Amino acid sequence: MATAVKVYGPPISTAVSRVLVCLLEKDVEFQLISVNMSKGEHKKPDFLKIQPFGQVPAFEDEDISLFESRAICRYVCEKYADKGNRGLYGTNPLAKASIDQWLEAEGQSFNPPTSTLVFQLAFAPKMKIKQDQGLIKQSEGKLAKVLDVYDKRLGETQFLAGHDFSLADLSHLPNTQYLVGATEKGELFTSRKNVARWWAEISSRDSWKKVLDMQKSV
Amino acid sequence: MATAVKVYGPPISTAVSRVLVCLLEKDVEFQLISVNMSKGEHKKPDFLKIQPFGQVPAFEDEDISLFESRAICRYVCEKYADKGNRGLYGTNPLAKASIDQWLEAEGQSFNPPTSTLVFQLAFAPKMKIKQDQGLIKQSEGKLAKVLDVYDKRLGETQFLAGHDFSLADLSHLPNTQYLVGATEKGELFTSRKNVARWWAEISSRDSWKKVLDMQKSV
Ligand SMILES: N[C@@H](CCC(=O)N[C@@H](CS)C(=O)NCC(=O)O)C(=O)O
Ligand SMILES: N[C@@H](CCC(=O)N[C@@H](CS)C(=O)NCC(=O)O)C(=O)O
Repeated sequence: MATAVKVYGPPISTAVSRVLVCLLEKDVEFQLISVNMSKGEHKKPDFLKIQPFGQVPAFEDEDISLFESRAICRYVCEKYADKGNRGLYGTNPLAKASIDQWLEAEGQSFNPPTSTLVFQLAFAPKMKIKQDQGLIKQSEGKLAKVLDVYDKRLGETQFLAGHDFSLADLSHLPNTQYLVGATEKGELFTSRKNVARWWAEISSRDSWKKVLDMQKSV
Repeated sequence: MATAVKVYGPPISTAVSRVLVCLLEKDVEFQLISVNMSKGEHKKPDFLKIQPFGQVPAFEDEDISLFESRAICRYVCEKYADKGNRGLYGTNPLAKASIDQWLEAEGQSFNPPTSTLVFQLAFAPKMKIKQDQGLIKQSEGKLAKVLDVYDKRLGETQFLAGHDFSLADLSHLPNTQYLVGATEKGELFTSRKNVARWWAEISSRDSWKKVLDMQKSV
């Protein structure tokens, strides 16, 4: 039997949880290795060897170590193609291209405003950091435009990249969960008919519920 | 013979030129279709059908239309695997994973500060838009940290993902060209020994010189 892959970082981190939900969808055994960020362990030389930017997650498999959550997800889908959810990264080149397109849209257009909002609205208050109201307003405006595009798309197809749940949808889970579950901005999602339908559907997957349990138990 | 693929957008756009240099590396015939951005053509209904965010580039091949420059590059490398530079997206799964990792680092860590700097320093003055000095300073600080990581990495390997020039290096060409060639911030690159060596090497590729010619002739 192959040894379990290793994921370094706390499951409450959005980028870590992106990798965890992918591994659960693919039914790939993993070992979660804690990184104590409040003690700055992610900036120590040993950790920087596997994640040179000093961020979580980092990832190790038999003969490779990787960083960047979306690159790790792509690798997991390619390496473990025959395990778990086989359609997660598409089963033909055109499906894969569509998934890559919407995964990039998430990384380039959705992630910047939502990361800012998650930090400002969910984390800053707990860390006693003053919120930047101008930045919150600006990010909300950007996110609304992105969600208008998504709402139109999701009126035409069940999931972002087409008929099937894919890496593109999965990649939206971590940030959306915080915004819908832990801030007052959930309405941005729930007020848009197709986005609301999509969110209800993707957030109720067993894989994601398991990640939420892991977050609670830390 | 297959018909040429179509690229919509002006070659002076960084995201458009990312796709162009990829097509030239892969020796894939293309037709460039102009989009008059000063007339707002990228926000018109016909264009929004192929690029719902109203940005350039958009791309069409036989049976697919795509947006997001990095997703288009991935598609071109997969579809035209046997043409032109065959190693551009790796020739085995581990090489590909490393390329994906550094391509994500470009999209997530390098692109945000460099896009801001390109806009603020190279475009805003021409468009008579007031520069935001605070934002410039902040982006410069973020970029310096990213380039420190790159300088270390490029002291160990010739290119970002390993021994060979890849999509990961290629993706850095558009923004770096503006910063080195059209702003006073080139020193951020040229003062770092390994980054400077790498930039000299990747920017002198024939494919990129052709893109620069295309930019001049518009
Ligand atoms: N693009 C990276 C982002 C990773 C990231 O931002 N991680 C955060 C936690 S969600 C982190 O480590 N922050 C600490 C820091 O940047 O110092 C990825 O997707 O893996
Ligand atoms: N993430 C997109 C970014 C595209 C992008 O930002 N395009 C710019 C030109 S470089 C644009 O169309 N700007 C006009 C606008 O956003 O309205 C990609 O890589 O294709």
